Amino acid sequence: MKVLSFDIGGANTKFAVVSGEEVLERNSIYFPFWKRKNKFGDLLVDIIKKIEIDDIDAIGITMTAELSDAFQTKSEGVNFILKVLKNVLSKYNKEVYVLSNDLRLLSIEEAKQNPYKAASANYLAVPWYVSREIKNGILIDVGSTTTDIIPIRDGRIAARGKTDLERLQTGELIYTGILRTNVAAIVNSVPVNGKSTRVSSEYFSTTADVYSILGDIENNEYQCSTADGRGKSRNECMARLARVVCADTDMLSEKDITGIAKYIKERQIVQISDGIKQVMDAADFRGEVKIFVTGAGSFLAKTAAEQIGAVAVGIDINPSIALGYLIVFYK
Amino acid sequence: MKVLSFDIGGANTKFAVVSGEEVLERNSIYFPFWKRKNKFGDLLVDIIKKIEIDDIDAIGITMTAELSDAFQTKSEGVNFILKVLKNVLSKYNKEVYVLSNDLRLLSIEEAKQNPYKAASANYLAVPWYVSREIKNGILIDVGSTTTDIIPIRDGRIAARGKTDLERLQTGELIYTGILRTNVAAIVNSVPVNGKSTRVSSEYFSTTADVYSILGDIENNEYQCSTADGRGKSRNECMARLARVVCADTDMLSEKDITGIAKYIKERQIVQISDGIKQVMDAADFRGEVKIFVTGAGSFLAKTAAEQIGAVAVGIDINPSIALGYLIVFYK
Repeated sequence: MKVLSFDIGGANTKFAVVSGEEVLERNSIYFPFWKRKNKFGDLLVDIIKKIEIDDIDAIGITMTAELSDAFQTKSEGVNFILKVLKNVLSKYNKEVYVLSNDLRLLSIEEAKQNPYKAASANYLAVPWYVSREIKNGILIDVGSTTTDIIPIRDGRIAARGKTDLERLQTGELIYTGILRTNVAAIVNSVPVNGKSTRVSSEYFSTTADVYSILGDIENNEYQCSTADGRGKSRNECMARLARVVCADTDMLSEKDITGIAKYIKERQIVQISDGIKQVMDAADFRGEVKIFVTGAGSFLAKTAAEQIGAVAVGIDINPSIALGYLIVFYK
Repeated sequence: MKVLSFDIGGANTKFAVVSGEEVLERNSIYFPFWKRKNKFGDLLVDIIKKIEIDDIDAIGITMTAELSDAFQTKSEGVNFILKVLKNVLSKYNKEVYVLSNDLRLLSIEEAKQNPYKAASANYLAVPWYVSREIKNGILIDVGSTTTDIIPIRDGRIAARGKTDLERLQTGELIYTGILRTNVAAIVNSVPVNGKSTRVSSEYFSTTADVYSILGDIENNEYQCSTADGRGKSRNECMARLARVVCADTDMLSEKDITGIAKYIKERQIVQISDGIKQVMDAADFRGEVKIFVTGAGSFLAKTAAEQIGAVAVGIDINPSIALGYLIVFYK
């Protein structure tokens, strides 16, 4: 069985083609809903052109883009996205499944009637995949914008939050990522020349600058817009980060700016390790707990896990691939 | 003597016409440099059209717009702004004075040679005015985007920071304001239904939404863009603030959202009172200390002052008016 599956985020649309346990295709396309939602149909058409749609047996859909401020409410967002999908996909006459936040597969019509079930269910796909292999563990997925921390207990997903709101309360969702996060949302102050320095609250620099400066990501991994619309060279990243303390690269040295970047990285790791601790405490694990890390920012999750004395193992999977596996497994 | 004075911010350009101690004209125009810097000359021409330029004896200039990410470095920003000003103003043959961060009045040419002296000097104008009246005190100006906390000791401005970077270190500049501040830069979590809830790090809602919801500002005082480009009604403000915890107005009640707004207000007041304490400790005042509050967000400064046991008195002045007085006084 061959499945085409979509994970439609506010900033990136990811898709995969899986056949059995094999991944034939995987990709991520920068598509910011808040700028281009009316081109979403064109995006889908472009993606379908690139794959051999005739060989596909079923199509899977999961999303978080409904939270984008392109939409006034989540139900408006879910319905918009499903309507466009239905329009584009109808002529291919394939089974279409929408993942729900209780791990069921809904038809488009069912999902439209239960928009809150279809909203932000994508975080469940990878934990479902991992839960088939392990009994007790935590899966941490650090993406461009957000981090998911999902407990697996007795071989089942033991997440307490269903909606994103609940997940923000339980520590299972932390709105921090390695590319798009405004550094002003991570830190209130940073050290400059040994002095604690308040930061600007503007959108001057993002974590993609931080990790470019530190060499944690390569230039081709900087897959989002820059805060100021300028380029992605290390010097341009340093100029943006300097602006966060109302300075510039004339005023601060490379060492100063690297020091700021290191501090922001440390604080972001603490955001993640705080979430891990909260999830661990609530799950009340008995016996060995394995931590699996995935996503473009898995290196942060690994350090966060180590800081609380756990060992983390990397796995290479994402929600669109896992959703494909899930459909192969159940259908 | 009649002076036209400009306070050119990144988001708003303020101007005033003063004659002796009288204010003949004052205005603030939303002009975001990061979107429209190439129209800055047109803005100046429009402003000059509205006043009687022939009666003006001198023109004053101060700025913070050089920090806008319209410019790669501050000196680029200062030079751009001064060049446009020179082009527009040259034909009127008036004396033009640029305020420096050591309270001197420079010619445009002098300012171009010392861009760091002209950068972000506007915060000194109001303290200079107040320092003529009082011996020991603190002046707090809460604007749309930033808050200045300036000590006056023995009748002189006793600020320790010269550049914005130094002022962020000394507590004399806090990058928090009552309209444009991203709420995610103020709080990491907010209470929802009694539960601590992490917030989204996106630019979903600003303090203008918070103070509209709480009734602290009127609709016509919401003088900035909304985060999502939608309207400024109370319902639209509530929708934006709900999105900060990945919720919407279907999921949260008015009471829930008002509770979030109150909490953000409390935290913003703490940002300001922390700054006041730091400035007070460093100034090491002897005797009575008066606190003066000004700016659109003076109500926050008043509460912050009261929370540390001080009494605050409101004064109605802004940097463009104070710069006008300063030029009348010295020239």
